[in-house]
Amino acid sequence: MKLTQGIHVMHLFYRINRVVWAQAGPSTAAARSRLEALCASYSHPSAPRISTFVNVGGKADLAFMLLAAELDQLAQMHREIEDAFPAGALEKVYSYLSVTELSEYMSSEEDHRKQLIEREKLVPDSPEFTARMEDARKKMAEYAHYRLHPELPDWDVMCFYPMNKRRAGADNWYSLDFEMRKKLMGGHARVGRKYAGRVSQLITGSTGLDDWEWGVTLVAQQLDPIKEIVYEMRFDEVSARYGEFGEFYVNIRCAPAAAWKHLRL
Amino acid sequence: MKLTQGIHVMHLFYRINRVVWAQAGPSTAAARSRLEALCASYSHPSAPRISTFVNVGGKADLAFMLLAAELDQLAQMHREIEDAFPAGALEKVYSYLSVTELSEYMSSEEDHRKQLIEREKLVPDSPEFTARMEDARKKMAEYAHYRLHPELPDWDVMCFYPMNKRRAGADNWYSLDFEMRKKLMGGHARVGRKYAGRVSQLITGSTGLDDWEWGVTLVAQQLDPIKEIVYEMRFDEVSARYGEFGEFYVNIRCAPAAAWKHLRL
Amino acid sequence: MKLTQGIHVMHLFYRINRVVWAQAGPSTAAARSRLEALCASYSHPSAPRISTFVNVGGKADLAFMLLAAELDQLAQMHREIEDAFPAGALEKVYSYLSVTELSEYMSSEEDHRKQLIEREKLVPDSPEFTARMEDARKKMAEYAHYRLHPELPDWDVMCFYPMNKRRAGADNWYSLDFEMRKKLMGGHARVGRKYAGRVSQLITGSTGLDDWEWGVTLVAQQLDPIKEIVYEMRFDEVSARYGEFGEFYVNIRCAPAAAWKHLRL
Amino acid sequence: MKLTQGIHVMHLFYRINRVVWAQAGPSTAAARSRLEALCASYSHPSAPRISTFVNVGGKADLAFMLLAAELDQLAQMHREIEDAFPAGALEKVYSYLSVTELSEYMSSEEDHRKQLIEREKLVPDSPEFTARMEDARKKMAEYAHYRLHPELPDWDVMCFYPMNKRRAGADNWYSLDFEMRKKLMGGHARVGRKYAGRVSQLITGSTGLDDWEWGVTLVAQQLDPIKEIVYEMRFDEVSARYGEFGEFYVNIRCAPAAAWKHLRL
Amino acid sequence: MKLTQGIHVMHLFYRINRVVWAQAGPSTAAARSRLEALCASYSHPSAPRISTFVNVGGKADLAFMLLAAELDQLAQMHREIEDAFPAGALEKVYSYLSVTELSEYMSSEEDHRKQLIEREKLVPDSPEFTARMEDARKKMAEYAHYRLHPELPDWDVMCFYPMNKRRAGADNWYSLDFEMRKKLMGGHARVGRKYAGRVSQLITGSTGLDDWEWGVTLVAQQLDPIKEIVYEMRFDEVSARYGEFGEFYVNIRCAPAAAWKHLRL
Repeated sequence: MKLTQGIHVMHLFYRINRVVWAQAGPSTAAARSRLEALCASYSHPSAPRISTFVNVGGKADLAFMLLAAELDQLAQMHREIEDAFPAGALEKVYSYLSVTELSEYMSSEEDHRKQLIEREKLVPDSPEFTARMEDARKKMAEYAHYRLHPELPDWDVMCFYPMNKRRAGADNWYSLDFEMRKKLMGGHARVGRKYAGRVSQLITGSTGLDDWEWGVTLVAQQLDPIKEIVYEMRFDEVSARYGEFGEFYVNIRCAPAAAWKHLRL
Repeated sequence: MKLTQGIHVMHLFYRINRVVWAQAGPSTAAARSRLEALCASYSHPSAPRISTFVNVGGKADLAFMLLAAELDQLAQMHREIEDAFPAGALEKVYSYLSVTELSEYMSSEEDHRKQLIEREKLVPDSPEFTARMEDARKKMAEYAHYRLHPELPDWDVMCFYPMNKRRAGADNWYSLDFEMRKKLMGGHARVGRKYAGRVSQLITGSTGLDDWEWGVTLVAQQLDPIKEIVYEMRFDEVSARYGEFGEFYVNIRCAPAAAWKHLRL
Repeated sequence: MKLTQGIHVMHLFYRINRVVWAQAGPSTAAARSRLEALCASYSHPSAPRISTFVNVGGKADLAFMLLAAELDQLAQMHREIEDAFPAGALEKVYSYLSVTELSEYMSSEEDHRKQLIEREKLVPDSPEFTARMEDARKKMAEYAHYRLHPELPDWDVMCFYPMNKRRAGADNWYSLDFEMRKKLMGGHARVGRKYAGRVSQLITGSTGLDDWEWGVTLVAQQLDPIKEIVYEMRFDEVSARYGEFGEFYVNIRCAPAAAWKHLRL
Repeated sequence: MKLTQGIHVMHLFYRINRVVWAQAGPSTAAARSRLEALCASYSHPSAPRISTFVNVGGKADLAFMLLAAELDQLAQMHREIEDAFPAGALEKVYSYLSVTELSEYMSSEEDHRKQLIEREKLVPDSPEFTARMEDARKKMAEYAHYRLHPELPDWDVMCFYPMNKRRAGADNWYSLDFEMRKKLMGGHARVGRKYAGRVSQLITGSTGLDDWEWGVTLVAQQLDPIKEIVYEMRFDEVSARYGEFGEFYVNIRCAPAAAWKHLRL
Repeated sequence: MKLTQGIHVMHLFYRINRVVWAQAGPSTAAARSRLEALCASYSHPSAPRISTFVNVGGKADLAFMLLAAELDQLAQMHREIEDAFPAGALEKVYSYLSVTELSEYMSSEEDHRKQLIEREKLVPDSPEFTARMEDARKKMAEYAHYRLHPELPDWDVMCFYPMNKRRAGADNWYSLDFEMRKKLMGGHARVGRKYAGRVSQLITGSTGLDDWEWGVTLVAQQLDPIKEIVYEMRFDEVSARYGEFGEFYVNIRCAPAAAWKHLRL
């Protein structure tokens, strides 16, 4: 059950039932070891991988981000997490299923060619043109690889939220033609690039898979660039007129051993 | 309590209460056998049939799709599933009641006749025309039979979601005339046919029976064609302007014995 | 606490807590008897009456429809049902309070008079005219009596849902004048009459009493006419532009003794 | 923590957990006495006052309406009710916090003066004019006192619901000027006056205090005038275009001793 | 995990599970001491600080407002509160994560300069102008410090609610240009200043952090100015056309020792 390209992604947010945990007594030590072993065994930089977090703000206790090439492996990793805990100790707060994907609005080879000729006035097939095109091709391939096989920086703060493009009245994204959508997404991407080095973002697709059309995972080293990028993008026409957002989950990156301590379990 | 034509359909999504399951001890072995026997006894290719799945993505554990000619038999099959489990072990997450139905927008004999004469320039009642009409009639009958007595391919991935046609402001499906609706649905069907062999879909009717107007069951061999077909259809005017979607449930086909193993029960 | 005209109606949908039921042991036998006795004692064709159903489709287990002339009697019947069960065995899923009412859009004597004169060209006060008016008056009285003191046929399938008339933007029912509303409701009623003998419907009023403005109770001998009438009415302008619908509950008519068996309790 | 004018109001709707109640054994007798004593001690015609009700229709079991001049006294009365019951026996269904208030749209002295001069053609400062103005002032003072220190008639049926004025698109109440709002509210009040003697209403303000802008408490001697007044007002432009309504709770007035009996506790 | 400027804020609303509390016996005394010690140790006028409240109106029992410079410290303070209570005694009702922030619509030095020259006709760089500018700079700095490091007055009543600016149809805040937004916010601020000394407000930012864009914390000495300011602002165009509001939580300031007494624990 592999995808034609890309990998499967699951975000899981749980609350610990502290009554069950308190009653589980010595079996909680086994739970700790099991979860630590599990995360160690799924620690490929890309996939299969389980990353652990503690949630901040009161919505949940523990958060997990799972990456797997095979759908059944992803499903198994999820079940292994649940099975690591004493029965009833893990109460689901929110979950999200998506897959990595290329964006149809990414710059194409044709876009780069045009830009070199029209904006930079390079002569087609001149040595400089050829070198610049080679460069562009390399960057496109790197970006495509990042979108399909992401390795997010291991920064302290992770924020997840799902989103839709609006389909209502005069603000119907799905009634716009491709050129208009590509142009609008270009402005959106420019805002994103301003935050390079401060916020790393991963957009995964979930139309037909979960209740929103995309999942957004942002990582940063502190909380304010998360707020700033989401706030600034809200004025961008893509978000202002077409963006619909689900719940926001803010989390701190935290290995399992530290998570127990953080949660005072 | 048979329908005039077609059969009854129920989709059921459950979570296993793992505390109850853990406490049920030896009675869980009986539960396993009961569910396996139940699925064996309802294994007609069409109806009566119970198909079992494990849910992927965190919303549920087990999923069932039930087909029955009689409403009371459908109701009994549902109760037999619940009764197979120890009391309290099965917690309902979501359920959906619908019936198979013909679409009023399906091609009619008249549509085929017109097409042969106007587009293909065949002479009415010529031998070729007659043969082609015979062929069309056969295909229509096959399609009608599939819609009313579906036998979905036993592929790995099943996705279920309910949907409505919008009735609001300028985007009111129910205020369009029949010809416009038929034309719009025709475009929609063309997208569906592009996925033949990769995605098999079953549309069942539920206006007046459950909280949305239709249930959609998609099966595929991997996850991406599910995402692609739903995403591509979203740009189709029928979905872009008139489609409203409920929750999406993604599931892996899994016989009961394998489901216990998958769920680590 | 009688109404000036008509009677009180309550629809109740419950889930059985099977853990409590299983633990209740011999006291469940008493519960069975109590509920059977209760339904026997409230079995007037109109009111006071308790009708019992099993729910189909996964939303609930047991359903009740209560009719009473006095509000406090209705309240008592509800409490007697709850009291018949072991504490905690009955978990409320949904409930609805309404009253029977005449529709302000029903044909008036004036409507009939006009129709006989203008459409049927009868001479006012001629013997035929007088006989026809007498007939009309009798039918109006019968219909009014049915609306206020309903005796639904004891058919197998019952569907309940609540509804509103929309009050938003250009589709504001409550901003239309009476003549327009009466005309629109007339078209709606014509659809209803097409289903005479296949679907029997009862519209009860709940503005100010519960969270929607009307409750709709449909009974039929099989499931498809329920779907057909609700679907066909959705194209009617009254529903297409002004109808807002709540949750749909489909139920099978079932005396208490049969309900236990059906639910495998 | 007194208000500058008026008093604090709390509506509370609870379900009794019958399992807890059944297990509480002899301590339920103490609970009964405590609640009865509590209601006796808070029985001022206006405030401090606790009125008790049983809910009808399935949403709740017990309902309370609390009135207090001091906010901390109101809070204490609420805690005393909860404390009267065995731990866990009282499960909150819904609650609402508001304060009594004068309406900014009430007739002013200037309105009365104008009416006497312009409509009734009285000579300003003539003896009749002076007497009539004195009369109007008295009535205004009485009405203002009723709004701020309400003493509702002790009738059998009480209905509570919260409401908003719409702030959306073309139907934005808060964008209308004061004169237009006053005119619209005048029409609304005229409908209310038609029900004098049959329905007594209390409008309390909750903007900034709870999730809706006003709470509406209606009392009547039977259920139909409640339905009629809310239905008739829905056609009034204020409700048709600007009214948004929350959940409706219908209750029967019932002293604590009778409530136990009614609820079969 | 410090912010570039400002501090982190968490609002927490809990219900006490009285069954768990009653069963916890002597360990509740330890819980009391732990919470009291915790609040004593986090009692900086600004941050780190935990302020405690009892909720009024039925939505919750206890409320906390947390302020911390470091995100992980804020998270730890939250976990320390939960850990102070017996397992299961504290049930989350609502929580909110935000950060203090400067408003982009605050008066700038340029705004003050313009006002002195254009409205007050002062000569630029004259001694009076220079003194007045110095004054303005000082006030701006004080206000900025208050926004980023708030010390709310310790008044009796605290109200919290989250809000959004609307992004829909013709009322799309995020499609307005900066000048228009600044002008609209200026009118809003003028209403706020009318309540100086009666209501103190703190606006914190949460776009990308929680489910609404801002959190609003109002404190006052009694309930009515809370209602008045929110009601008056609703007519302001910013709120009338662009404001969307979440749930409102009204609370009384209460040290832990008094909270136990208030809650009758």
